[in-house]
Amino acid sequence: MKGSRLEADSYRRLSEADLATYLAGVPRARKRLGGESSGWSVREVGDGNLNLVFTVKGPKGGVAVKQALPFVRLVGESWPLPLSRVDYEHLALVQQAQLAPGLVPEVLHFDEAMKLIVMELLEPHIILRRGLIAGTRYPRLAEDIAVFLARTLFFTSDLALQAAEKKERIAAFAGNHALCKITEDLIFTDPYRVAEQNRWTEPYLNSIAEGFRADLDLHVAISRLKLKFLSSAEAMIHGDLHTGSVMVTPDDTRVIDPEFAFYGPMGFDVGALIANFLMNFLANEGHEKNQGERADHGEWVLETTQEICRRFRAKFLELWRRHAKGDAYLTCLFPGALGEARLDIERQHYMDRLFQDTVGFAGAKIVRRILGLAHNIDFEWIEDKARRATCEARALRLARELLVNASSFTSIEAVIAAARFAASWKPGFT
Amino acid sequence: MKGSRLEADSYRRLSEADLATYLAGVPRARKRLGGESSGWSVREVGDGNLNLVFTVKGPKGGVAVKQALPFVRLVGESWPLPLSRVDYEHLALVQQAQLAPGLVPEVLHFDEAMKLIVMELLEPHIILRRGLIAGTRYPRLAEDIAVFLARTLFFTSDLALQAAEKKERIAAFAGNHALCKITEDLIFTDPYRVAEQNRWTEPYLNSIAEGFRADLDLHVAISRLKLKFLSSAEAMIHGDLHTGSVMVTPDDTRVIDPEFAFYGPMGFDVGALIANFLMNFLANEGHEKNQGERADHGEWVLETTQEICRRFRAKFLELWRRHAKGDAYLTCLFPGALGEARLDIERQHYMDRLFQDTVGFAGAKIVRRILGLAHNIDFEWIEDKARRATCEARALRLARELLVNASSFTSIEAVIAAARFAASWKPGFT
Repeated sequence: MKGSRLEADSYRRLSEADLATYLAGVPRARKRLGGESSGWSVREVGDGNLNLVFTVKGPKGGVAVKQALPFVRLVGESWPLPLSRVDYEHLALVQQAQLAPGLVPEVLHFDEAMKLIVMELLEPHIILRRGLIAGTRYPRLAEDIAVFLARTLFFTSDLALQAAEKKERIAAFAGNHALCKITEDLIFTDPYRVAEQNRWTEPYLNSIAEGFRADLDLHVAISRLKLKFLSSAEAMIHGDLHTGSVMVTPDDTRVIDPEFAFYGPMGFDVGALIANFLMNFLANEGHEKNQGERADHGEWVLETTQEICRRFRAKFLELWRRHAKGDAYLTCLFPGALGEARLDIERQHYMDRLFQDTVGFAGAKIVRRILGLAHNIDFEWIEDKARRATCEARALRLARELLVNASSFTSIEAVIAAARFAASWKPGFT
Repeated sequence: MKGSRLEADSYRRLSEADLATYLAGVPRARKRLGGESSGWSVREVGDGNLNLVFTVKGPKGGVAVKQALPFVRLVGESWPLPLSRVDYEHLALVQQAQLAPGLVPEVLHFDEAMKLIVMELLEPHIILRRGLIAGTRYPRLAEDIAVFLARTLFFTSDLALQAAEKKERIAAFAGNHALCKITEDLIFTDPYRVAEQNRWTEPYLNSIAEGFRADLDLHVAISRLKLKFLSSAEAMIHGDLHTGSVMVTPDDTRVIDPEFAFYGPMGFDVGALIANFLMNFLANEGHEKNQGERADHGEWVLETTQEICRRFRAKFLELWRRHAKGDAYLTCLFPGALGEARLDIERQHYMDRLFQDTVGFAGAKIVRRILGLAHNIDFEWIEDKARRATCEARALRLARELLVNASSFTSIEAVIAAARFAASWKPGFT
């Protein structure tokens, strides 16, 4: 009730024209921009699926402003979506900033009534996905992403939190169910059935799409993962951690847009990232003007994928060994050198189980980007349809393997071997 | 804030003396009791661990009144416990009454400020545990318990609920963390470490208790179960479903005392019941005056255990086939006869995984009753300490097997075979 009254009272959609006036009343924004508001340049730049995003530049510096719309921007007013998602994004951003300092944009101002967040302008950062498509290498990326994953997931899990606090945090995000529902539908359901919003590269992928809609082993696998997404409150997850939710320079990495955040399965975040790197790898050939010219870049992408997984595992384990203040796996039950050794074996098993979830979720995230509503520019920017479909078919083949045989992938090396194998497949569209 | 102000304003502990006056102001209680309040007899009968419980009888009928104390009754004021547990008990009772009509006591009145619930008086019901110790058979028991378990668990799971509603319900119980904490400590932690509140039948069980405190395989198993208890929000569970939480006549079964309710792993409820039946079976010999005189009763207890599991599985599956309105395992992904057949295989796998959890939790519930704080009269009423310890040692041997090798028990028949084997063990205390 409180939320809806506030919305009715004070929410209005900002335009480029009145944003400067609004920001003139926000001291931290005014200070960062410098000068007079009349001299600030405002641009709406939202290329995401859901919200308005503005960049504002002044004589001293810039800010970014994200405002929720009461519907899904990509689709329009016919698909309403609660404004409250900004509240959860803000909650997640604040917690992520504490847990992974320097790896998320700094929040300068949060306006609950207007449903907007004013953040530092990330400059000269670009969206990681675009950087990867351009073939740029990011030497800090694997380390930064691994740190972000390990710290945000570990410190919000039962390994680090007392049960009472964790239950409160779960409840704090419970209202974000409309965003979870998008994931439940678009990732775990629609690509496997006839759904109006599905699309794919026709006619090449028609028979594969049809096959996926009839593949009952695949449907069992995706249903198990959906159940996990619905019922496993393992940690606060970002919930939409693809390469479009990361902004980069060669020297800096920031994770943005956590509006899908809630307490869910950790493997969903790790899997999302791996899936998007693997898709970039498999799209690579489609961007080549001369055969083999992007082979080195592909190798770097695979290496980075491997490094993210290895470092995530090492860092998560290190945090667990040093900061196990949660109610799970109490160290008092594993005393002495023998106890510590036994607990460490169990920690490895825990990471193995998490990796298995990760593999399955990675498969799910690939399928949704090729047969579902929201597609990746990694593939979309391949103009020749037959070439694009070839890359996509390879990714779907890999994804099915990851989904149906998740338990047979016991290391990231095995996943990468499967990706290489998929890349060698000639579906014969050309 | 609201809760604590109300408590400060209006909560006062009721005595036998002023309960009749209180109930005279409760229309539904007055009607059920009949006559004048001066003619009502009030008796405090709480033999549980936490609360005040009164029975009140009038010329027409009776009521039961349960009032929370701000501490754990069994221990005293040194162990504070939030009065809000009554709110959660009430919430759970109301939902259980809808889901499993006739299997919980009827709520006549709930006073949030006084933290009390007025219920129908269950008469001539007795606590199931006492009935089982007395050697009484309850022909309806297995069916009623199976219905209670299947309906309360299925209809609050992702198989029956939409995700948004389930998230709201999880949040509604999130504040009950103090009761969850009791379980986390007393079941999943203390019996496996030196803890002041632990006790056991000394000196006979000293070496077993010491062994359990040093048994790292056991500690891994109990830690995994605790993690599941902390992070798997599968369904609304009763949370304390032992044979002391069931009241019976040969013709009627009622499940009481759901103050530990929250959204947790289903296997915890099913395992609690199985554990308590198995403990009754293993205590049986200790109550014999002449060797073998209770053998038939023991067989009936095992048969009932088996029937509960079989019927629970059949009923849960039947509900799933008929009422799958939840967001998990959408039937649209399993169309036609082939789809239905494949889904049914997966349903069996789901039940197998649930049974595996059940086996582990059953083991945990046995250990806590023999090495932890709260003990069962099944064992406690065996006066000869060596005989009691013999029965308890057998139960602990079974429990360790269930905990450490849970995955090797693929059916209730296997568990019962292990219980028979444990019953044959002579630990040599006498």
